[in-house]
Amino acid sequence: MLGTGGGGGVRTGSLAAIAAVRRHGPVPLVNLADLPDDALVVPMSGIGAPTVSHEMIHGEDEPRRLAEEVERIFGRPPAALMSAEIGGANGVAPVAWAAQLGVPLLDADGMGRAFPEVQMISMYVAGLAADLVIMSDVAGNVVTIRPVDGLWSERIARAVCVAAGSHALMSDYVLTAGQARGAVIEGTVTRALEIGRATEGTADPLGALREALGAARLITGKLTDVERRTAGGFVRGSATIEGTGADRGRRLTLELQNENLVAVEDGRTRAMVPDLITVVDTETAAAVQTESLRYGQRVTVLAWPCDPLWRTPKGLETAGPRAFGYDLDYVPVEELTAHG
Amino acid sequence: MLGTGGGGGVRTGSLAAIAAVRRHGPVPLVNLADLPDDALVVPMSGIGAPTVSHEMIHGEDEPRRLAEEVERIFGRPPAALMSAEIGGANGVAPVAWAAQLGVPLLDADGMGRAFPEVQMISMYVAGLAADLVIMSDVAGNVVTIRPVDGLWSERIARAVCVAAGSHALMSDYVLTAGQARGAVIEGTVTRALEIGRATEGTADPLGALREALGAARLITGKLTDVERRTAGGFVRGSATIEGTGADRGRRLTLELQNENLVAVEDGRTRAMVPDLITVVDTETAAAVQTESLRYGQRVTVLAWPCDPLWRTPKGLETAGPRAFGYDLDYVPVEELTAHG
Repeated sequence: MLGTGGGGGVRTGSLAAIAAVRRHGPVPLVNLADLPDDALVVPMSGIGAPTVSHEMIHGEDEPRRLAEEVERIFGRPPAALMSAEIGGANGVAPVAWAAQLGVPLLDADGMGRAFPEVQMISMYVAGLAADLVIMSDVAGNVVTIRPVDGLWSERIARAVCVAAGSHALMSDYVLTAGQARGAVIEGTVTRALEIGRATEGTADPLGALREALGAARLITGKLTDVERRTAGGFVRGSATIEGTGADRGRRLTLELQNENLVAVEDGRTRAMVPDLITVVDTETAAAVQTESLRYGQRVTVLAWPCDPLWRTPKGLETAGPRAFGYDLDYVPVEELTAHG
Repeated sequence: MLGTGGGGGVRTGSLAAIAAVRRHGPVPLVNLADLPDDALVVPMSGIGAPTVSHEMIHGEDEPRRLAEEVERIFGRPPAALMSAEIGGANGVAPVAWAAQLGVPLLDADGMGRAFPEVQMISMYVAGLAADLVIMSDVAGNVVTIRPVDGLWSERIARAVCVAAGSHALMSDYVLTAGQARGAVIEGTVTRALEIGRATEGTADPLGALREALGAARLITGKLTDVERRTAGGFVRGSATIEGTGADRGRRLTLELQNENLVAVEDGRTRAMVPDLITVVDTETAAAVQTESLRYGQRVTVLAWPCDPLWRTPKGLETAGPRAFGYDLDYVPVEELTAHG
């Protein structure tokens, strides 16, 4: 749900998390406030082709080797792992890695959602330097990159990832709990759990979901047009939903780049990035990823506010509509839906 | 001369060495026996396309950043640099890096010549683990690789090198002086200097060179056929020399893979790798690289014994004729030329 159409499927990561918890026991969830200033918080995420990650599955050695390298460099072991991105695959898989390492998971992430580009992360917005990247691959190799900037970080990490078979485990922005305060988005693991629980065992999953998210309903209807192409490593395109029932006669278009970025109706923007826009199945309220959008699907489009960090000038510069090439001034979703 | 046709041109490296010595002062040459057991010996070499290395020239920051990473990992700075490969560009350039770092140069290298593949190095033959590679590039990035084996080391280092623009500075087999004893080929810097001086200001450069090298003359003649192609990152091919003067009527063929590997006359092998085979200009005694071999050149082919390390079973397995795909049992050059 928090992937806003992107972030990759959660099935492989969920299976890995369940298996790891069965074998190693449950993963304690810790709050940033409970960690001493010098405790090491290690964000871990997969890098590479999601399609590969579902076939070339992480073993237990990769998080272990990555954690060993962290300890070698910082002189102490990770105090907690963190999801870099709570939406999609990278939101679930860290549960498996934390269980395998016997380390708690921090109730926080670096986005509060999913974003397609590496610099779109709260630690970057908070001004922390991305001067260390640690990678660990299925074969057992560990690579440490000290890049001069984010562009070089991306370029070298991508080359290493491709050499390792197009998928690897990565940690950048290893940070102390002191550095993490104000630089991560807190409470997002709890929020993800609440969202998941809201739709369980209810007769009105969509209503329960809207309430849990605090989301506006942009339209309920039928997918009538999906234009999608994979270009430059991203899924780009648009999807059109024609209203049904009470929404008959209305028509909403979503602009996509891995995630749902902008929702437009009659030339008027109804919601835009960094606010969250998610397409769900109208009946089950299950999230529909951008790569699964199909003609004829009965869907509802929901939109709700992003974390306040993304609404700061640096936040909007990093992940606002102009960062994605849209000539739009950001207007919060609650204003746009209030006017509508 | 010790590049045996490969190892890359020495001109850029020589200019860099001269400039660095002018700016920072001379580089002390130290013997392994003078270093305490725990002193760090850091082999440094260029990795990538030699053509690029002549245009995208190393700055002073690259050896400095590499040395800083060594100190970060080992807790102490390099006590001495070492050429990984005394033949060709990588034999000369470490003088520049040592001058820039203010660190002595060890009178040793890892080959006593040049070899085309990364595992063809004395430290590998001596059984040391290639479990750490440090790279530093023109842009300022530093990458540390902890590979599971030499194949992965090569694969990842190559990918990083290409991402950095196809040339980088590299250090693998960072070793203590204690580990280096018996695992490096000593005295090779002194030997290179002696070879260079031998042909200076003499009326008979070829004779002086042969004496300095202890080399047999395989043939003196004219290059009549050169077949050369660049394939799989290597220059491969063969060159035929037809004898002139006292050698009229004879014909020697060299098999090449970056370096001169096998010399054959009338179906009889006259010299073979790991022994050294070098083509020199008959008049000036200047070495001719495999990529500079040209029809009509008046040349002399010299051959002389490799370091004893390469004649051990592990040495021959690593860099003997079969390691290059030749179905030949190794016979030392002094036996082959004695029989001739």
